[in-house]
Amino acid sequence: MDGLESKHHLNGSMFTKNPLLDPEEFRRQGYMVIDFLADYYRNVEKYPVRSQVKPGYLRERLPESAPSDPEPIETILEDVQNEIIPGLTHWQSPNHFAYFPSSASIAGILGETLAAGFDVVGFNWMSSPAATELETIVMDWLAQMLSLPKSFMFAGNGGGVLLGTTCEAILTTIVAARDRVLHRIGRESIHKLVVYGSDQTHCSFHKSAKIAGIHPNNIRKIKTTKSHAFGLAPESFRLAIEEDLELGLVPLYLCATVGTTSTAAIDPLGPLCDVAKDYRIWVHIDAAYAGNACICPEFRQYIDGVEKADSFSFNAHKWFFTTLDCCCLWVKDPNALVKALSTSPEYLRNKATDSKQVVDYKDWQIALSRRFRALKLWLVLRSYGASNIRNFIRKHVDMAVLFQGLVAKDERFEIVVPRFFAVVCFRVSPAAILKQLYSSCHQHCPKSVGDDSVNDVNQELLESINAGGRMYMTHSVVDGAFVIRFAVGASLTERRHVISAWLIVQEHAHAILGRKNCPCSSAPCEREASSVSSSLPIHSILNVIGPC
Amino acid sequence: MDGLESKHHLNGSMFTKNPLLDPEEFRRQGYMVIDFLADYYRNVEKYPVRSQVKPGYLRERLPESAPSDPEPIETILEDVQNEIIPGLTHWQSPNHFAYFPSSASIAGILGETLAAGFDVVGFNWMSSPAATELETIVMDWLAQMLSLPKSFMFAGNGGGVLLGTTCEAILTTIVAARDRVLHRIGRESIHKLVVYGSDQTHCSFHKSAKIAGIHPNNIRKIKTTKSHAFGLAPESFRLAIEEDLELGLVPLYLCATVGTTSTAAIDPLGPLCDVAKDYRIWVHIDAAYAGNACICPEFRQYIDGVEKADSFSFNAHKWFFTTLDCCCLWVKDPNALVKALSTSPEYLRNKATDSKQVVDYKDWQIALSRRFRALKLWLVLRSYGASNIRNFIRKHVDMAVLFQGLVAKDERFEIVVPRFFAVVCFRVSPAAILKQLYSSCHQHCPKSVGDDSVNDVNQELLESINAGGRMYMTHSVVDGAFVIRFAVGASLTERRHVISAWLIVQEHAHAILGRKNCPCSSAPCEREASSVSSSLPIHSILNVIGPC
Repeated sequence: MDGLESKHHLNGSMFTKNPLLDPEEFRRQGYMVIDFLADYYRNVEKYPVRSQVKPGYLRERLPESAPSDPEPIETILEDVQNEIIPGLTHWQSPNHFAYFPSSASIAGILGETLAAGFDVVGFNWMSSPAATELETIVMDWLAQMLSLPKSFMFAGNGGGVLLGTTCEAILTTIVAARDRVLHRIGRESIHKLVVYGSDQTHCSFHKSAKIAGIHPNNIRKIKTTKSHAFGLAPESFRLAIEEDLELGLVPLYLCATVGTTSTAAIDPLGPLCDVAKDYRIWVHIDAAYAGNACICPEFRQYIDGVEKADSFSFNAHKWFFTTLDCCCLWVKDPNALVKALSTSPEYLRNKATDSKQVVDYKDWQIALSRRFRALKLWLVLRSYGASNIRNFIRKHVDMAVLFQGLVAKDERFEIVVPRFFAVVCFRVSPAAILKQLYSSCHQHCPKSVGDDSVNDVNQELLESINAGGRMYMTHSVVDGAFVIRFAVGASLTERRHVISAWLIVQEHAHAILGRKNCPCSSAPCEREASSVSSSLPIHSILNVIGPC
Repeated sequence: MDGLESKHHLNGSMFTKNPLLDPEEFRRQGYMVIDFLADYYRNVEKYPVRSQVKPGYLRERLPESAPSDPEPIETILEDVQNEIIPGLTHWQSPNHFAYFPSSASIAGILGETLAAGFDVVGFNWMSSPAATELETIVMDWLAQMLSLPKSFMFAGNGGGVLLGTTCEAILTTIVAARDRVLHRIGRESIHKLVVYGSDQTHCSFHKSAKIAGIHPNNIRKIKTTKSHAFGLAPESFRLAIEEDLELGLVPLYLCATVGTTSTAAIDPLGPLCDVAKDYRIWVHIDAAYAGNACICPEFRQYIDGVEKADSFSFNAHKWFFTTLDCCCLWVKDPNALVKALSTSPEYLRNKATDSKQVVDYKDWQIALSRRFRALKLWLVLRSYGASNIRNFIRKHVDMAVLFQGLVAKDERFEIVVPRFFAVVCFRVSPAAILKQLYSSCHQHCPKSVGDDSVNDVNQELLESINAGGRMYMTHSVVDGAFVIRFAVGASLTERRHVISAWLIVQEHAHAILGRKNCPCSSAPCEREASSVSSSLPIHSILNVIGPC
């Protein structure tokens, strides 16, 4: 027995136990990890949603070097509980309303487990035919659920592929579009290419364009306005193109968004595609979040116009109960991807590829290696079924509507932009702050409150709520206004969590507003000084109070 | 009961069962998936290693649309067994000797399961501090195990990051190097940048460079020779640079390889870095496969010189018992990455980032979102311990040595290039083919055999072995010679599998060589015609026979 192997008598036959993949040991440890996670879901509601650790907390708790000898799974799981869990921000908590959701599910997690268990490297068809074929099938199923036109499906000479993230979807399509144009105008003109998005487009777009070698000065962030609900106006797009053409630049690519990160705003796809067509611009639709909802007929209208686009992507890991990472990308012209991204080294040559009867997904993506991501999507689709998945999404939207109604009923708050899908953008209203400030003022103070002061109150409110740990939301700034985003989508969230979230918001707002008084009266400041949390920057309070 | 929720009486209290993440349902299904995988490992040896399905097999077996209603896990797992497993190429089979290994382990798979279970999106520190902090710690641990200089570690102002694949490691570092130089010489000069690799460098390098906007004509594949064991000669590198400088081009980046894909060849890092330094060229070391072995002191010499490089990466998912994907990248100057790749949208602003006390890994990689990959590496390091991991690798190398010895003893075969690590490149020798062809010839035929004929025999041999399903190897072509690669590294492989693999090779070689005769005698062709497999292209046999 050399520490690596030990002999066991199993099922009457001599069996050499392999410490890496022994079936019985896998079963024993596997059950423990499953139990651990089951307990985690039972308890996740009890943990502070946003982690409360300080930078560097973990280095203090862990050894400086990897252990030389094996440690039992029992000890490791204890450490996961005691050292790791306090440092997690609990995306699976029913009280997680931050960012966009990361909605796990039993089927998604176990699909990932199966894929990790097989651990096949599906770069081409031959390296694991099932990985490629299941992916083409699942992508066609999803295309049907989204009512994408046939031109995005394999039967229509388009096709879908699973990538990690939206950034990869944008990067691969920019590179495909780029090489198509450079083939025409010459490689040396790369610095003339221009890509377009709005000031609401996700930062992945700017990052991808920069990675692809687009001149940073040629990445347009076209201004949107509140009057257009922060959607990109086709006339602004055309104007930007015309300006660039006058400068001798070459318009290349538009990234249109359905469901922006700040406010879930929607760019008008049809009219934008019509403009793009006039200039032969590749249109990619980034529906990372909202694309999920578009499997429901009542939301499908938001991607009307997709039939005119070149590519479309959404993140199943956001709101399709499929764990990170799982970005679904469809293109009308897979050849454009393949031309830009294919590699054919001798060591990957094989009969199937030579026959041209198969898809080799390595040529549709950045990397060569790829996980068997289709498995988890397939498990999710089958475990819940299309109608239930639609209903899960509807339930989340309904909860957002509930929250919106609660906000609307409280005159201290306002909905800043129209709610789309399950994201509510709200804030304490300027009027409420004004009223609170001067309600106890018996002088003849000029009654006003600046934008910065309103923003500071809302920022203070959000930080106070998040620091409390009972729920977690994030923010954005649109048109100069700091807005709090309430995004419903965690798999465990029920109506009771939404109602309780609203009570928490009210409670913190009450406390914060209660400390705001017209500074002409110094009394409240003194009276409440001791109860003001030290985490509240005094300047923000002063900002709110303003000149009196 | 609306199909989404059902009421259950559990632990005496009314409990609403959530179909997405109900703890008990997760446990029930989780155990079943663990059992399924345990059985898979018990049986994996019985499956044909390379899948034997035909293109399109799965579309015939699966429905055309996603199911509308839920299906039980029992049915789904049955379908995984009956429909998916036949379409898998079994990378975890002990008889998988193809490509480079994809070595799964209990700890790796369960680490992935835990990460999927938490499903945190660790783009920045705040979004889940433990994900970031564990990654910095584990990367420092690994750096120690590799004896990387402190300049690659966080304490030395460098640092490590976990990416998906080597392609991402190369792309991020090319982009960092690119933007550093373009900042100096102007964005318009992007088409002048030149990147260097050898004709043995992995295709990921060419792909990454193209994605980054490097002019395809400026991607150098410097020729290597058998006399240098296919390593990149520093003098050839310098010559290529000088030629480019004369053309007014700008040398940017070298991708040096330790353990090439074709033959596991090693570029001489120290001398190459010395050349690169003269021209301020960024040196990245791609040790995707062999880097794993360099945790053993006896192999550490192969990365001597790494201290002079700018970045270094290896794939833990190849040979570190960590499931796909898990590429470990270290850089000396993280700021170069951050400058090229950072994004700071308002919706991600937070106090921790503003304090500059934390690492936000989104700025070290292509994508924004990222999985909690450090968890599986941590589980692997702790579950097995550093010394055992070293021993696992040594055991694989020992088995490759065993195979090499078996090949060497059979005079029909030759080792084409020196064995490095656990890859043996061999073939049926030209001499053996010559001897076999003319052994029964009683005429005065001119005795010769062309290179193509030798390659055809070996290609035929490999295809015959792989089609048999009992083992799987892949090939490469070096210096015009078709070589069969025998790569040991699957977690379940033991000495008996290697010996049995050799017997299979001999058996197929015997059959194939037995059918080769000098064409001056037509008898054997007629005699054996019926026993020649229809899968053997007749032209390849004729090629071997050649003019008589």
